Amino acid sequence: MPADPVKFTLPEDRIPTHWVNLLPDLPGQPLPPLNPGTMEPAGPNDLTPIFPMSLIAQEVSPEPEVEIPEPVREVLRLWRPTPLYRARRLERELGTPARIYYKYEGVSPAGSHKPNSAVAQAYANREAGIERLATETGAGQWGSALALACSLFGLDCVIYMVGASYDQKPYRRAMMESWGATVVRSPSDTTDAGRSQAAHTTGSLGIAISEAVEVAAGDGRTNYALGSVLNHVCLHQTVIGQEALAQMELAGDEPDVVVGCVGGGSNFAGMSFPFLRRVLRGQANTRFVAAEPAACPTLTRGVYRYDFGDTVGLTPLMPMFTLGHDFVPPPVHAGGLRYHGDSPIVCGLVKRDLVEPRAYKQNETFAAAVMFARTEGILPAPEPAHAIRAVMDEAEAAKKAGEERVILFNLCGHGHFDMSAFDAYLAGTLEDPEFSEADMEAALERLPRAPAIA
Amino acid sequence: MPADPVKFTLPEDRIPTHWVNLLPDLPGQPLPPLNPGTMEPAGPNDLTPIFPMSLIAQEVSPEPEVEIPEPVREVLRLWRPTPLYRARRLERELGTPARIYYKYEGVSPAGSHKPNSAVAQAYANREAGIERLATETGAGQWGSALALACSLFGLDCVIYMVGASYDQKPYRRAMMESWGATVVRSPSDTTDAGRSQAAHTTGSLGIAISEAVEVAAGDGRTNYALGSVLNHVCLHQTVIGQEALAQMELAGDEPDVVVGCVGGGSNFAGMSFPFLRRVLRGQANTRFVAAEPAACPTLTRGVYRYDFGDTVGLTPLMPMFTLGHDFVPPPVHAGGLRYHGDSPIVCGLVKRDLVEPRAYKQNETFAAAVMFARTEGILPAPEPAHAIRAVMDEAEAAKKAGEERVILFNLCGHGHFDMSAFDAYLAGTLEDPEFSEADMEAALERLPRAPAIA
Repeated sequence: MPADPVKFTLPEDRIPTHWVNLLPDLPGQPLPPLNPGTMEPAGPNDLTPIFPMSLIAQEVSPEPEVEIPEPVREVLRLWRPTPLYRARRLERELGTPARIYYKYEGVSPAGSHKPNSAVAQAYANREAGIERLATETGAGQWGSALALACSLFGLDCVIYMVGASYDQKPYRRAMMESWGATVVRSPSDTTDAGRSQAAHTTGSLGIAISEAVEVAAGDGRTNYALGSVLNHVCLHQTVIGQEALAQMELAGDEPDVVVGCVGGGSNFAGMSFPFLRRVLRGQANTRFVAAEPAACPTLTRGVYRYDFGDTVGLTPLMPMFTLGHDFVPPPVHAGGLRYHGDSPIVCGLVKRDLVEPRAYKQNETFAAAVMFARTEGILPAPEPAHAIRAVMDEAEAAKKAGEERVILFNLCGHGHFDMSAFDAYLAGTLEDPEFSEADMEAALERLPRAPAIA
Repeated sequence: MPADPVKFTLPEDRIPTHWVNLLPDLPGQPLPPLNPGTMEPAGPNDLTPIFPMSLIAQEVSPEPEVEIPEPVREVLRLWRPTPLYRARRLERELGTPARIYYKYEGVSPAGSHKPNSAVAQAYANREAGIERLATETGAGQWGSALALACSLFGLDCVIYMVGASYDQKPYRRAMMESWGATVVRSPSDTTDAGRSQAAHTTGSLGIAISEAVEVAAGDGRTNYALGSVLNHVCLHQTVIGQEALAQMELAGDEPDVVVGCVGGGSNFAGMSFPFLRRVLRGQANTRFVAAEPAACPTLTRGVYRYDFGDTVGLTPLMPMFTLGHDFVPPPVHAGGLRYHGDSPIVCGLVKRDLVEPRAYKQNETFAAAVMFARTEGILPAPEPAHAIRAVMDEAEAAKKAGEERVILFNLCGHGHFDMSAFDAYLAGTLEDPEFSEADMEAALERLPRAPAIA
């Protein structure tokens, strides 16, 4: 028997029974979303056309723990608990005294952490008598997850897929269709929002969100489902961090730093919130690092303001770091990180210096991904490759300082549907687009006239 | 806590310490491979140009158990033990009294069971001082597995990929290259074998084998690695069945029938040999079902004769069911099952009626795959979709007979790189090519003139 275990697994009965709600532990009152017409706090009535009441309640819940419905756990156990690994081979390759751990969410049938929330949302909507869910997808991870969840709960599913991804990733489309979903290329002529943006032939996540929200708002049997950003989505993902806490205990180690990539914030939130709560309660001193692409540097270079969640402006205004709701990021392959804003909770944590954001360029993240694949075996998706890059920096810093450092990160998905990006990286044709300051200045002029945030 | 568990996991220290060698339990003397020049039994000298002595010893080992080297187990634990599931959702959908279990090998980084042997072979060759491995790949599962294994043991790797797959599956190629392998389209102009078959522009597994064997035979630093068929490959895969035995015990159930798909036979062997040994020793009454494509029906319609393992005729002659060494199967999507022969051990078991072969058409296997995906979540590869089809038949038979029946099958890989096939199935454009009796008659004339098998 090997003396040094690499994999820490939990039995099925250790799937968490509750989600961790960080809201009540945050100092002060949370900033409310605003109705863009009145600039008053958005109430349930602003949301009932597209969300079921049970999810709206989760969105603003004051309870530190929210019970997971048994039928949701019933589905989660198809792939949960997910494994936690000690990256001993990567440590050796880096020659670092750091101990590196990762939670692997790529074992879900859709290949990422996204089903954790898709299942909870599909269940809540079915219980509310909804028959169909509409959503958007960029890289395809969220669309796949919702297609899977709808299939398991007997709901119809329509997915607006960003045009560029629809064209480049026919296999992601086929995956969603295999689970029974209808996939529509966005911008489409099936919605006003789509027709109004027809000039953007390659589409964007913001436009696709507008289309899906419009469909849901105009149809009583259809609701909308979002794969990130919102409080209830972050809530659903906390099964990740809770399992990781138990697994780090099994490993007999305590993380000094927790790392995740951030697009809308849900995988980062899912891993970090259970650890962050301990920090907020004075029970630990963990650091937190949020890794994002230099091409879409919301947390490192955005402004902290109220902005729309979508391009057309159908959603409530949310308090967040933003690059402007009509910002269309350069076409980097980490499609899941190409979003102009971020989870309001995660943004608030960055604002309070509880989370340290870092931006990385495309080629350096793929270099990290390839080194990881050749040592640990698993081919990571381009999104968590940003986290891996940040982990390598932490490991290098530990080496220079000659100190042991325990690093935990969330490997939120595999790269099986991103091989064309690896191909381009290996061929040396991958570009390193950077964010332009001029873009930011132009975006600032188009931000909605909402109250400034203190 | 749910009363009815669906997932049975073993801790890392339950990875088997030995492989199960079925040879000594088989009645009579095993039929030897023959040197095609002399028609005498092939000895180690026939194999040393392309295999290390330790694998040749495994190929003919009389020991019922062969110890797994610790460095091999060290790598296996990156994904082993793999989970065993009870397919409760599928059972409900089928309305069957049968209890269906499956072992899921798709959690390996390459996405199938293939790395179990790739790792063992890469280690054995590195220990023998070999610096490079050459192999062939069709669907890409074996090539990916060997690329991964070579990466983890620091060996170079060259992979001859069947032309049609090379063109249709650029992402499988990119996966192998991400792990550092060199991928060559076959037939190529880098070998005599390739040049002699240049007319077969789309290539075949048999031709690609010829190319890889030629490269290995002509280069002292390079050996050859085969992903199926041979005894030592089947041996390496028995970690699957041994874990499944322990997991069925955890589940408190005993399989009445064990099902697997058969291309060269390695995943079928890996799952079934540990269970078969109990039958051969009079300790159990399990049935065994081998599922293959109707387009390449080796076990159901081939002849039991000595034949070459490759197209050009570079390998020893092996006793097996064969469709003729130069048979090029119709282009069905289960590329891993498009092989003219099968493992001699598996063929012998079929000949002795210990294993029951069944052939299925392409569309009925994809229908089974889609039903499985929509109930159990996991998108299966086209190869194990044949096993799923057979499982559904067994479940239906149990329903008709009104009897409980415990069915265990090997879900040997996921379909993430086969989505174009699902796309075609859903679009209704998938064909159902069938084997032609005329092909068989023509092939019989070209079989090598070897002794008949009793």
